[in-house]
Amino acid sequence: MDVFEAVRTVLAVRHYQDKPVPADVVRRIVEAGWLTGSASNKQPWHFIVIEDRDTLRQLGAAARTGPYVAQAALAIVVAIEHTEFAVSDGSRAIQSMMLAAWAEGIGSNWVGFLGPAEVKTLLGIPEHLDVLAVVPFGYPAQVAGRGKKRRKPLSEVAHSGRFGQPFA
Amino acid sequence: MDVFEAVRTVLAVRHYQDKPVPADVVRRIVEAGWLTGSASNKQPWHFIVIEDRDTLRQLGAAARTGPYVAQAALAIVVAIEHTEFAVSDGSRAIQSMMLAAWAEGIGSNWVGFLGPAEVKTLLGIPEHLDVLAVVPFGYPAQVAGRGKKRRKPLSEVAHSGRFGQPFA
Repeated sequence: MDVFEAVRTVLAVRHYQDKPVPADVVRRIVEAGWLTGSASNKQPWHFIVIEDRDTLRQLGAAARTGPYVAQAALAIVVAIEHTEFAVSDGSRAIQSMMLAAWAEGIGSNWVGFLGPAEVKTLLGIPEHLDVLAVVPFGYPAQVAGRGKKRRKPLSEVAHSGRFGQPFA
Repeated sequence: MDVFEAVRTVLAVRHYQDKPVPADVVRRIVEAGWLTGSASNKQPWHFIVIEDRDTLRQLGAAARTGPYVAQAALAIVVAIEHTEFAVSDGSRAIQSMMLAAWAEGIGSNWVGFLGPAEVKTLLGIPEHLDVLAVVPFGYPAQVAGRGKKRRKPLSEVAHSGRFGQPFA
């Protein structure tokens, strides 16, 4: 799927089919994160791929805003260093992974933000790293991509030449 | 261009051809930022599209790490609110724009990070917003996409099941 088409159609997916994601597709999603650009190429990130159902359940219980992690085919936990640009770099990597997955028909969602500590303990993540997000992935339970996105009017956030001059 | 292919091949581009980017392509790049998902759909961002050569020169002078902004076909200045998730959300939007541009043959690079103040003054950006980045765009001066990316070994940053178990 073309990049713009992926950006245009990708939706947050919180309900998944009970269907595994093939190993080569999982690998491309992980590689999309790994290959993402970062400030000064520091790559201040780790990707922990979780496919074990019991661990997914424990993640779903720990990530209070995302109990549906328990039903995902897999989750990728993104842990980052305590450095100035790590939130930004990690967010870029997650965006790459979510778009790459969507292009293969796989939905995802961003769960949590810099927490919770239980996830670190559960996965043995060292003290010097933070959990930026838990990102569950799976084939969407509903036919996806038809919903229109709710966004502010383009003219409110896009400007031409100078702030306040609407981008036509 | 397919999403994974875009993520795999995109490179930082700092030298541009003296060739304008068609208006419909500029619009798709801006829309890719606008349509990006954000925490609680807050969309805490503004995109200021700069195509005027004199303003691009002033941006290049202000953005000390990116004098090449002066030669770009355009730049998009991303300004964000002072809110908890805005750096993360803005970084996701920039990633969407850079990938969407690359899929159309257009290179870009991330310049600056939360500064400098001169950019705000130059573009009339209100006090309550920060400049997250200046992102120049243009057709690459060199044939791009052949360089191999320098990345840590995948096994160093990707883990399976638990931190420290390399993802095969």
